Amino acid sequence: MLLNKIEELYSTNLTGMKKSVIRELLKLTQKPEIISFAGGLPSPLTFPVEEIADLARDVVLKEGEWALQYGATEGVPKFKEEIIKFLASDNVTAKPENIIVTTASQQGLDMVGRVFINPGDHIILAAPSYVGAISAFRGYSVNFECVSLDDDGMVIDDVRRVIADLKSKSIKPKFIYIIPDFQNPAGVTLSIERRRELLEIVRQENIIIIEDSPYRQLRYVGDDVPSLYELDKGEGYVISLRTFSKILFPGLRLGWIMGHEKIIDKFVVAKQAMDLCTPPMSQAIAYEYMRRGLLLDHIQDNIKLYTKRRGKMLEALGQYIPEHPEIKWTKPDGGLFLWMSFPEYVDTEKMFMQAIEENVAYVIGSAFYANSGGNNALRINFSYPSEKQIDEGVQRLARAVKTQLK
Amino acid sequence: MLLNKIEELYSTNLTGMKKSVIRELLKLTQKPEIISFAGGLPSPLTFPVEEIADLARDVVLKEGEWALQYGATEGVPKFKEEIIKFLASDNVTAKPENIIVTTASQQGLDMVGRVFINPGDHIILAAPSYVGAISAFRGYSVNFECVSLDDDGMVIDDVRRVIADLKSKSIKPKFIYIIPDFQNPAGVTLSIERRRELLEIVRQENIIIIEDSPYRQLRYVGDDVPSLYELDKGEGYVISLRTFSKILFPGLRLGWIMGHEKIIDKFVVAKQAMDLCTPPMSQAIAYEYMRRGLLLDHIQDNIKLYTKRRGKMLEALGQYIPEHPEIKWTKPDGGLFLWMSFPEYVDTEKMFMQAIEENVAYVIGSAFYANSGGNNALRINFSYPSEKQIDEGVQRLARAVKTQLK
Repeated sequence: MLLNKIEELYSTNLTGMKKSVIRELLKLTQKPEIISFAGGLPSPLTFPVEEIADLARDVVLKEGEWALQYGATEGVPKFKEEIIKFLASDNVTAKPENIIVTTASQQGLDMVGRVFINPGDHIILAAPSYVGAISAFRGYSVNFECVSLDDDGMVIDDVRRVIADLKSKSIKPKFIYIIPDFQNPAGVTLSIERRRELLEIVRQENIIIIEDSPYRQLRYVGDDVPSLYELDKGEGYVISLRTFSKILFPGLRLGWIMGHEKIIDKFVVAKQAMDLCTPPMSQAIAYEYMRRGLLLDHIQDNIKLYTKRRGKMLEALGQYIPEHPEIKWTKPDGGLFLWMSFPEYVDTEKMFMQAIEENVAYVIGSAFYANSGGNNALRINFSYPSEKQIDEGVQRLARAVKTQLK
Repeated sequence: MLLNKIEELYSTNLTGMKKSVIRELLKLTQKPEIISFAGGLPSPLTFPVEEIADLARDVVLKEGEWALQYGATEGVPKFKEEIIKFLASDNVTAKPENIIVTTASQQGLDMVGRVFINPGDHIILAAPSYVGAISAFRGYSVNFECVSLDDDGMVIDDVRRVIADLKSKSIKPKFIYIIPDFQNPAGVTLSIERRRELLEIVRQENIIIIEDSPYRQLRYVGDDVPSLYELDKGEGYVISLRTFSKILFPGLRLGWIMGHEKIIDKFVVAKQAMDLCTPPMSQAIAYEYMRRGLLLDHIQDNIKLYTKRRGKMLEALGQYIPEHPEIKWTKPDGGLFLWMSFPEYVDTEKMFMQAIEENVAYVIGSAFYANSGGNNALRINFSYPSEKQIDEGVQRLARAVKTQLK
């Protein structure tokens, strides 16, 4: 009987993968009475439903010939032109050859794995880092070299130390993976000085930076910091992953990768075999939205809403979470998340069940550690719950926390 | 300078991949004066543009809450229910757990590679076979064991021989990849007897069949043959890949994989890391199209159009291609393609340049051979060109052929 022997047939890469902890824990949080600070969903209040409905109709009528057909693997040229205009608003100059459209950032991450990782290769990333990146890279049987984070983002001395350690074993890491803006999960932003230092390092070592920046446009406080892609000035050391999921809506599954055209060409080869092309229908809808000049205003609306929710979250945490020298949380300048840490002895996975009993959910910190760690930390999302839910949810969380303190 | 050293950074899997021959040759065929029998595009005449335009508007208004948000990796439940109803029209009983929605069949193929293939593994497939499947599997550094095709599809004795050969080297193939219905590129259909034999073999050997059937609903002549998935009766030996690209339109990039729920669960793990989920927007549009009961009628319209085009193609080939004992072509009962073969000394890649001069294009046979062969054959598509173009294109092709005959 096949099914008894099926395990023999699965690939080694697959057996290294596991169902995303976030997604599995999210299943526990489906009860309507739960206030969820887990997940990373944008608020449906930001979805321009009526605009998109009308625009979808118009664009199918007007652009149906390509919107309904197969498209170029690189992306629909007209849509890429709109992306290029959008990038200009962020000081980035790009040509069509620098861009490949992806089925959102998660595919971008998987493509990075496909293009760069051989089993047993080493990559550098922060602990904590985005859990979806960890799963994507784990699917290519990579070794994770973790460096720490502080309030200014990735600790550069740590990066130097890891590279030196690897060099002493004649190992060259394939790339440094980083979420420089409003990091997921920690909410911290890499300072301009560290951006420059990081670029110096990769130039010296001839390695690549994978810049994953899904929330870059969602800044609520402080001044913009140039992207690593901008600072690289087209030299090819930075490959940048972007998405429409957080600035328009996720249901299109739409993003792009930018980099030197020689490297992007390799991503095209990979994507041809992976799914031929990103849905032209998705590209058509986003194209029309941008062509009508709606995206920048829409982002401003998102920023307004999330600024309030972030404010409410910080206020509620200050108000309800018990004062304790070892309970801390980050104060993100943008994005969707903040990070809380507790005394060493607090196990946030154990506390999770307590939280579920209190009808509040978060993501356990260890999910974001590629190797190990994070057991006394957790991630909080403030984009999805309403201000009222944030206030009530933090009270519930505070009750769960209190049960764990000695 | 990084870009001089970048080759060192690419993965071995990537260096094994190359840009699809079809896609690269297609670039030569972009001149408007060329009649293209290359490509595998459905005719835009079949695209229900106005219906889709209205329906897209309605579905965003009505189902926007999930159509615009992230969706379950497995696929949107409501949409899967419609797929299940659709399958009933093809004698297939499925539960939601048997189905995972994919970003069309190409992603399905890539996921098959991800779930099953370790570098150096062996798989069995026909020569010729779909070039996209070859690229997808090649991306996992697989060894191809090729078996031959005749008018009844894959030659089963060849399958037995290959399995025995591998067994003598203590190798067990991971799966048999087959396009049983109106095969791409050959246009042949696996007979019912051979379907039964193939299932017997895999039951005995405990291996899996990957049934790739994108054109199954597009039959123009003869009676339906049960799918391998149906014949397996849920025992788990068959994983079946389906797509909306040829029965609705390709621009949604939408398909599904069905199989035993234990195996589908592994595909879910893989897909989570690959792109989180297939665009809910695409799923919403197809869902609404099916819910309104439009799909079966639409397929009948496609069949009407393609029946005429197939007829015209066979007529024109009979009329214009020089009679020669070694020039043959298949007479497909459905699908989009037929296969022509020439005397050994004819090199269809050389002839391709002649054809381009005559302003007609096809795909060279060798593109469909995972190892080597097919140099004296070519694939012809009859779904995209009009009847008039078919008549004129075959005259041009005949002129190119004549230049190559001794």
